[in-house]
Amino acid sequence: MSSQSEKDFLRVEPTGSPAYPVYVENDFARLQSGGDFDLEGVSQFFLISQTGLEESVVVPFLEALGERIPGGLPKERVVLIGQGEASKHISRLAPVYNRLIELDVDRKSCLIALGGGVVGDFTGFVAATLLRGVSFVQIPTTLLAAVDSSVGGKTAVNVDRGKNMVGAFYQPRFVYFNTRFLRTLPEREWICGLAEMAKHACLDGEGRLLADLENNADLLRNPDAPELRQAVLDSAAFKARVVSEDEREGGLRAILNLGHTTAHSLESLTDYKRFSHGEAVARGLVTALLLSRRVLGLAEEKMERYFKLFERLGLPGDTAGFAPAEVLDHMRFDKKSVRGIPRFVLLEDAGRPRYGIEVREEDFLAAYTEQAERFGSGARSAPKIQPL
Amino acid sequence: MSSQSEKDFLRVEPTGSPAYPVYVENDFARLQSGGDFDLEGVSQFFLISQTGLEESVVVPFLEALGERIPGGLPKERVVLIGQGEASKHISRLAPVYNRLIELDVDRKSCLIALGGGVVGDFTGFVAATLLRGVSFVQIPTTLLAAVDSSVGGKTAVNVDRGKNMVGAFYQPRFVYFNTRFLRTLPEREWICGLAEMAKHACLDGEGRLLADLENNADLLRNPDAPELRQAVLDSAAFKARVVSEDEREGGLRAILNLGHTTAHSLESLTDYKRFSHGEAVARGLVTALLLSRRVLGLAEEKMERYFKLFERLGLPGDTAGFAPAEVLDHMRFDKKSVRGIPRFVLLEDAGRPRYGIEVREEDFLAAYTEQAERFGSGARSAPKIQPL
Repeated sequence: MSSQSEKDFLRVEPTGSPAYPVYVENDFARLQSGGDFDLEGVSQFFLISQTGLEESVVVPFLEALGERIPGGLPKERVVLIGQGEASKHISRLAPVYNRLIELDVDRKSCLIALGGGVVGDFTGFVAATLLRGVSFVQIPTTLLAAVDSSVGGKTAVNVDRGKNMVGAFYQPRFVYFNTRFLRTLPEREWICGLAEMAKHACLDGEGRLLADLENNADLLRNPDAPELRQAVLDSAAFKARVVSEDEREGGLRAILNLGHTTAHSLESLTDYKRFSHGEAVARGLVTALLLSRRVLGLAEEKMERYFKLFERLGLPGDTAGFAPAEVLDHMRFDKKSVRGIPRFVLLEDAGRPRYGIEVREEDFLAAYTEQAERFGSGARSAPKIQPL
Repeated sequence: MSSQSEKDFLRVEPTGSPAYPVYVENDFARLQSGGDFDLEGVSQFFLISQTGLEESVVVPFLEALGERIPGGLPKERVVLIGQGEASKHISRLAPVYNRLIELDVDRKSCLIALGGGVVGDFTGFVAATLLRGVSFVQIPTTLLAAVDSSVGGKTAVNVDRGKNMVGAFYQPRFVYFNTRFLRTLPEREWICGLAEMAKHACLDGEGRLLADLENNADLLRNPDAPELRQAVLDSAAFKARVVSEDEREGGLRAILNLGHTTAHSLESLTDYKRFSHGEAVARGLVTALLLSRRVLGLAEEKMERYFKLFERLGLPGDTAGFAPAEVLDHMRFDKKSVRGIPRFVLLEDAGRPRYGIEVREEDFLAAYTEQAERFGSGARSAPKIQPL
């Protein structure tokens, strides 16, 4: 898979699957003009979205679309799944398959995934498996889904024994994101998306993502800013480039786990209820950078430059109320640990990640202690929230 | 996809997936020698089979295998699913995914599907989707699975609204069939397999399948006969050739539906409880040949030659106790009917099928009447049996 960022849209070229475009827009002009969307051969569309998104997303989208879908998109072909991670459980598949079959879905049908990562992962898996594969379109409506899960072809559902343990690699016909969807995005969702964008900036060897985020940090929460549109396009392009080199996760794709060793531990320690994934990743990025300086000699001023960006983006960096030893003990039992030694993605220089780095106990403890001193120790509990 | 039948085994070359061999054996020599099975990179094996097959199939297989599997195949890595079509329901997936995850399945694991079509379809789907794809091996134990479902890469599960409506195209590392598995095959299962083999003989443009089945008809129910082994290999090779030209069912693969228009109607009229699929197909093949003579002018003597073979193979040809109009009315509502006109695969000459043929009402009624006169009208009800 390779990809190229053009002025107007991104083109992703997966190995062994047809190339597809990623559109990132500030308005509905392309949608309303009928644009250059490739919908050839589609017999009918089904929209899959989520309860709670009707007013903010589904209605505006259908209105913008108007009659531009062949045959229209009558209401009975809109299927809403529930909110939260629980809606991605494998037990939720059968009702959706049955409903689509009742509605006479056929092999030339196209599913539209309109929503965040949960909707995209779930709908992608339905598309990959219904009638042994129908086409689908990704329309992410969160910043996180736009820069992360909608690119790369991973689809998945959860089983009791694990998240995303069942899935398929399956590419959409195209990805369409509109920054207008962000007008109603909750604060915590902004953090999720910006944390991933910051992560990409840490990993980008060319340094352009970092410089651009720095230049435009104050505009990146403005859904109408052209700078946000460009930043999303560039961040998605970076993700596409990484997965292009390693479509099925043999190696390089692992760098995308920067910040995730600590993040997984924090999520697991709080039973996935305290933090959204992005809130945990933001904290884990700080740990990873502190470790990068200690273990791989990342230059102090480069680390500080990242910290400054995180601060401007409003990302949390505290230690979530956990003592260093608690987090470490939990990490040791993580599946990705080998012989109880946790492995990290770290930077040896700005934009130069290395993965599979074994970190000594004392280094982790020192780094996490430093993180608490510097960014606060935060709180391990909070009012129970609906997972995002 | 293309394929070539060699003396020793069949090599299937699917487009876009690695080529894989189909072994058909009369004894366990290849298995016991460690043979030329490609198991490179496999970390561990899990065997998926079916209750009721323990004594007849699972134990002999594991004994023949001995310690030839790296790390062995301890009993806890044998997972048995239930009997019958109901075991392929989507609701049966989650327990198997969870069990495999508890047993520490990883991406380099390999699932062994040991059983009939239900086990193969189900296990293949689990392999296609667990961890977004682990490898698997098809070891069919019925004649039908050996000549039909184990070749072609179709995997599937059932939902309430339809059989095989959810699935994936996913190729095994190899297919291994041993005619010894047939020593305990029930009579009705013989009919299923022989009906598919007869169907392939009707479709084969070279005429070799037909001539060989005729020459060896009396040996084809003998699990130890080399002629059976060769016939299975040739029949599987024919299936592989057809799907090779049309891996995802755009066109030619449709010829494999010879006999299926009537068969589906009979199965549906009896709520899938009276007939095994093969028993319905055997009857449908007769209808299709009678129609071929009427509609496409198939020569009388060629039709009679097929009928003679069916008789020698012990295939049922009666009309299952249904009046012609009942079957026709039911067909009209079949999804594959267009404007209420049923479509058939018919032969214009021996081994020269055409698909999508619209058949007039009067032609079907006459053909089905003729079938009843000639092969008996049979019985529409029978003691309720467990579907095979």
